[in-house]
Formats: sequence, structure tokens, C-alpha cells
Amino acid sequence: MKFGFIGFGEVSYTLSKILLSKGFEVLTSTEGRSSKTKELANALDITVLDNFEEVANNSDILISANTPQSALAIALKYGSLTNGIFLDFNNISPNTAKQIGNYLGDEHFIDSAIMGKVKSEELNIFFSGKRAQELADVIERVRTKPPHNDNVKINIKVVSEEIGDVSKLKTLRSSYTKGVSALLIETFETAQKLGLSEDLWQILSLTENRDFETSAKSRISSSYNSSKRKYEELIEVLEFLDDVDERRKTKIMALATKEKFEKLKNREK
Amino acid sequence: MKFGFIGFGEVSYTLSKILLSKGFEVLTSTEGRSSKTKELANALDITVLDNFEEVANNSDILISANTPQSALAIALKYGSLTNGIFLDFNNISPNTAKQIGNYLGDEHFIDSAIMGKVKSEELNIFFSGKRAQELADVIERVRTKPPHNDNVKINIKVVSEEIGDVSKLKTLRSSYTKGVSALLIETFETAQKLGLSEDLWQILSLTENRDFETSAKSRISSSYNSSKRKYEELIEVLEFLDDVDERRKTKIMALATKEKFEKLKNREK
Repeated sequence: MKFGFIGFGEVSYTLSKILLSKGFEVLTSTEGRSSKTKELANALDITVLDNFEEVANNSDILISANTPQSALAIALKYGSLTNGIFLDFNNISPNTAKQIGNYLGDEHFIDSAIMGKVKSEELNIFFSGKRAQELADVIERVRTKPPHNDNVKINIKVVSEEIGDVSKLKTLRSSYTKGVSALLIETFETAQKLGLSEDLWQILSLTENRDFETSAKSRISSSYNSSKRKYEELIEVLEFLDDVDERRKTKIMALATKEKFEKLKNREK
Repeated sequence: MKFGFIGFGEVSYTLSKILLSKGFEVLTSTEGRSSKTKELANALDITVLDNFEEVANNSDILISANTPQSALAIALKYGSLTNGIFLDFNNISPNTAKQIGNYLGDEHFIDSAIMGKVKSEELNIFFSGKRAQELADVIERVRTKPPHNDNVKINIKVVSEEIGDVSKLKTLRSSYTKGVSALLIETFETAQKLGLSEDLWQILSLTENRDFETSAKSRISSSYNSSKRKYEELIEVLEFLDDVDERRKTKIMALATKEKFEKLKNREK
């Protein structure tokens, strides 16, 4: 079974390493790509083809791991060339997932996401779509077959047959975690004004979970560093929430989170 | 050193047990109290006096662990009778702490809070006020003296000499944790509508901390069960935030949290 990658950044590199270790064949192309991409691709025992059309033509599973902005164009252009299944790992919105599904047909598209860190000992992948269970079964069969090494455990969860369900879950998760970031930022802004932030870290570390301070500080700094992107993602989150239920009371916290990131973004300028 | 309790509910009972195990003397009264209170008081080897005036007169440290509503009246009535130090464990607002401090004087009042569970192996107590360090030192000396048993570790943190600082920290903590509850409720309301809540629990458990699902579910149910009280606490939180900085952008998330709990509260009717 051949896995093709459109785009070859960190995520593709890590996934390829895992797929190779499980005995799968991996294809990509470095056509028009940066020297860093070429380096990553050449560092592994993968097949580098002349262009992405060939990658699409020759793959059983075609994976796009690029940016949310380029996701739709790549899906339409290359997804339609493959006879296999197209997977998108770009954090696309439920609407974009639906569009891709409508264009490629549900024989050729699975809504998918990696949850948690890509570089870890367990890779948690969520699928939804008509052929989700079939693909999960194939990967499961290979995963459990010797002699391929088992340095990374692949857990696949099939959510449903509906394209869009995995994207909805990603969106809900994103809405929640960005809300927590906004809360952290606001609370510690006030604590800092009062000269009490060190004490507040100590108190919350006692009453929240063990890793609270580390994870909260990393959330705060990533929110400051990418407030513009997060603000844009929140606009998409709210569009999605509007589709589910228009009433304000179903998105009070999400609206506030967006407003908070708008303020953060404008401060950066 | 004698510790007196005004009111003898679960918190007073647990604290008394710990204080007795460290060799301190404990006083209270069951005057006008429920039979449950009498049972709790009689279950321990403490001195039960005829009334709370006597408790106040005879205590070196006088502790009020009642309700936020009764805290101010108790502090003014009994706090002024003691020659020792009055401690309030009622989750009072920074404003109430200031009022008590002004009335009793900073020789007789320490702003204090227990953070985390009272029933645990470590008791984390925060003090602020002029005599906070002195009291912490006294307790520390006893704590480390044999032969008293050490089933509970008492950690005391002196935040500052300012009455109000510990109450401010409690208020900031409360603002943050109620915000997280509001976010959880809103996110899972939508997930439920989409039939995706089980999958969302699974995903957030992968990417949040280990105890996420247990602690989040307990937050959600306690928010539903006491939405009215939490809504009232949020009004106090916002009064406090207004005192710190009037601008809307410093309390976007807190305002949304209050609005969310207002909706929850009204649904209960």
C-alpha cells in the first residue's frame, strides 16, 4: 500500500518515518519546493517522483499536510487525480471538509485529523466518512503484523460515516482550548497589575492539574505569538457555531474569546 | 495556643482534627446550632463553651468558617471580642476583607484562605496581613515539633503584608475556574447537539491533562447545581475587576462567564 504526500514539511516527515517503519511505501515530490523540504524528503528512504500529479496518480492513500489556506486548492487539484483515498491533515473547517467531500465523492475522501502531538509514542488519528472503517482496518492489519517495529503505536478511531464530523470535533476542541488561553491571558493580566502573578501560579498549580503551569505558560505565549492566526480561526469557529445554532446564548464564550484575540492581535501592531 | 471556631461545619471539623493532632487546643460553642453541628463538635476532643462570646474571649486565633453572606456580620461581632487574631475562611471578596481589616485593625486580622481540598494530605493555607508572618512562624514551630503526628502536612504561604491580597488571589482563581466551567458547558452543549460529545471527551482527554474528563465533568455538574450562587459570585468578581481597571478589554472573558451563568441560572427555574 502506497502513501503519497502533497507537501513535505515536519508533519509529513514524521508520518512518513512511522509509515516506513510499519512497512508501507511512501511517495512524494520536491517539485518547486524549498531546500529544507528537499532535505527532509532525502533524509528518508522514500520515493521522490518528478511532480505531484505523479504522486497523486500512484498513491493508494494521498495525504495533504500543508496549510489551511492552501488545503482546498490542493484537495481539488490533486485529490481528483487519485484513484485511492484523499486525506487532509490541514485543520480545515467543517465547511471546507464538506466542499472537498462533495467534489471528490465519499469513495475518495476521508475527513481526518491527528489529535495530540505528531511526535510522540502514540499517534492518535480520527477518521470520518464512508470508507473510514475500511482504511482503519487496513492500517490495523499492517500495524499488528510482524516484523515491523513498533516504536510508535497508531490508534485509529472511526467517529462516523459522515464527512465533516472529524472537522467538527477539531473545531469544538479549538474553540475550547482558545477559550482557555483567553481566560489565562485575561486572568494573569490582572494578576500582574496587582503584583500577584507568581502567587496565582502557585495557587492554580495546587488546585488545577499537575502540569498546569507549564501547559498554561505555553498556551499564553503561543497565543501572543500567533494572535492574528488564532483570531482568524475563531472567525471560522463562529461561522460553524452559527450553522449549528444561531442563538447568542450558544456562543457567549466563543464570541468573548474572539473579542479577546482581536484585542491581542491589534496590540501586536 | 488556643484556636476558636465560630461555626462548626465540615471545614471547622476537619481543621480541628488537624489542629488537635498537632497538639493545639480547640474551642467552639454549639449555642443555637443544628444537631449535626453538635454531633461534629462532640465527636472530637475539643472544648465546647456556652456561647461564641466566650469562644472569642478565650481564643488566640479565632476562625470563622461559615458562609460568605454571614462572614461580615460574624467578623464585626466576634472578631472585635478577641485579643488574638481573627481569620476568615468564607471566600469573602477583597472589599469585604478590607472592611473587616479596617474595623478590627491589622493587629487583629489576617486575610486568609485554604487552597485546594481541606480533606487531603496537604493543607495549603495562604495569609496576607501585618501579622501573617508571625502566625506562620508560630504554626511552623509547632508543626515541626515532636511528638505530634504528621498525617497532614501544613504548608503556609505568606503572600504579603497587605490585607486583601489573599482575597484578590481567591477572586482571580474563582474568575478563571468559573470561566473554564462556562467554556466546558458551552462546548459540550454544542457537541451534544451534534451527537459528538463522547468523541470530544476522548479527544480532549488525549490533548489536555490526564484527569481532564473527571475534573471537567465535576465542574460541569457543580456549575449546573449551583449556577445561582456562582452567578452571584461572578457579580462580585466583576465589581473587583472594575476596581482594578474599568476598561472592558480587561474583563471580556469574565463578563461572558457571568452572562453564561445568568443563562444557566434562569434555565433552572
